[in-house]
Amino acid sequence: MTTGTRTRLAPGERREQLLALGVDLLATRSLDELTIDVLAETGGVSRGLLYHYFGGKQGFHEAVVRYAAADLVRQTAPPEKGEPLEQLLASLTAYVDYVIANQAGYRSLVRAAAGGSEVLREIYDETFELLGDRFFTTAGPAMMSDSPANRLMVRGWQRLAEEIVLAWCENRAGLSREQLVQTIAAALPALVEVTA
Amino acid sequence: MTTGTRTRLAPGERREQLLALGVDLLATRSLDELTIDVLAETGGVSRGLLYHYFGGKQGFHEAVVRYAAADLVRQTAPPEKGEPLEQLLASLTAYVDYVIANQAGYRSLVRAAAGGSEVLREIYDETFELLGDRFFTTAGPAMMSDSPANRLMVRGWQRLAEEIVLAWCENRAGLSREQLVQTIAAALPALVEVTA
Repeated sequence: MTTGTRTRLAPGERREQLLALGVDLLATRSLDELTIDVLAETGGVSRGLLYHYFGGKQGFHEAVVRYAAADLVRQTAPPEKGEPLEQLLASLTAYVDYVIANQAGYRSLVRAAAGGSEVLREIYDETFELLGDRFFTTAGPAMMSDSPANRLMVRGWQRLAEEIVLAWCENRAGLSREQLVQTIAAALPALVEVTA
Repeated sequence: MTTGTRTRLAPGERREQLLALGVDLLATRSLDELTIDVLAETGGVSRGLLYHYFGGKQGFHEAVVRYAAADLVRQTAPPEKGEPLEQLLASLTAYVDYVIANQAGYRSLVRAAAGGSEVLREIYDETFELLGDRFFTTAGPAMMSDSPANRLMVRGWQRLAEEIVLAWCENRAGLSREQLVQTIAAALPALVEVTA
């Protein structure tokens, strides 16, 4: 089998490298535009090898989205110390930066999660819940007690953040990145206060 | 052509009646489950006539969703008089009641709008914008000035409301309908204050 690789890597490392490349490509492409052909051409790898690694476009998309979701979770991890609001602002700033850097892929994932494949929806939902859970674990910003009502509010607030950040990427509406983050953060205590 | 109708109606009235029936059926069914066959059986109308009226399942769905969206807009119209917060609470209460009464169809529409047909997405987007525009017309709650930043915040707040109300329909999280409405309403001034 001709792989066209320029460096010798173990199969696991090679797969990892291709996934990282897939995530890079997804930053400026929708999932529909991220094909095995594009990866083969950009990575200098045969289509045969890619089918061997990922089983096809669907398997490739699932692997790339899992990898991208893990990136998002890692990059937005709140700092371990500091006031809860500082932790929130740092995590939210990282989220905004992530969406700015990976706009096309992130936007298409939100769409795919709502209407597309069951597996992509599951990855999206798991990540969404993981990010929301942070408010209720010791590692995250301790801004509220763990109650069903507060968990409901966090869900809604996450959706608000997603919508506002994606819309802001298209039209900044006169808001700086800092103002954007401050505003989204301010909505959370307001949601939690009423139900307290 | 045998129509199986029990009453004699003009074609326009008949179509209208079938649309209203479609909206009723959509309350407890997803779009996928709302077929021409289901409508034919429930309405006592031949499939041929339904194809004549709607051109097929896609055309039927578009007509029903347009009709349902107009219903939503009408039912959530804020009262013409009163304090802005009272107007907002009344409109939001009507929205919650609408989602409770039309849960299955509304949920599937939100999904279809994100991932499904272009036309359904357009109807959804138009309705979403129409509901948000209310804050910036004289008929709606005058809670903020008309600026790109405030319009961005309203978009996010609408998504928050949609998410929270749909999740609350599945799990009330210990919140009464009134508490739910109060909480969602409270988030809006918080969003607007920071950017002011």
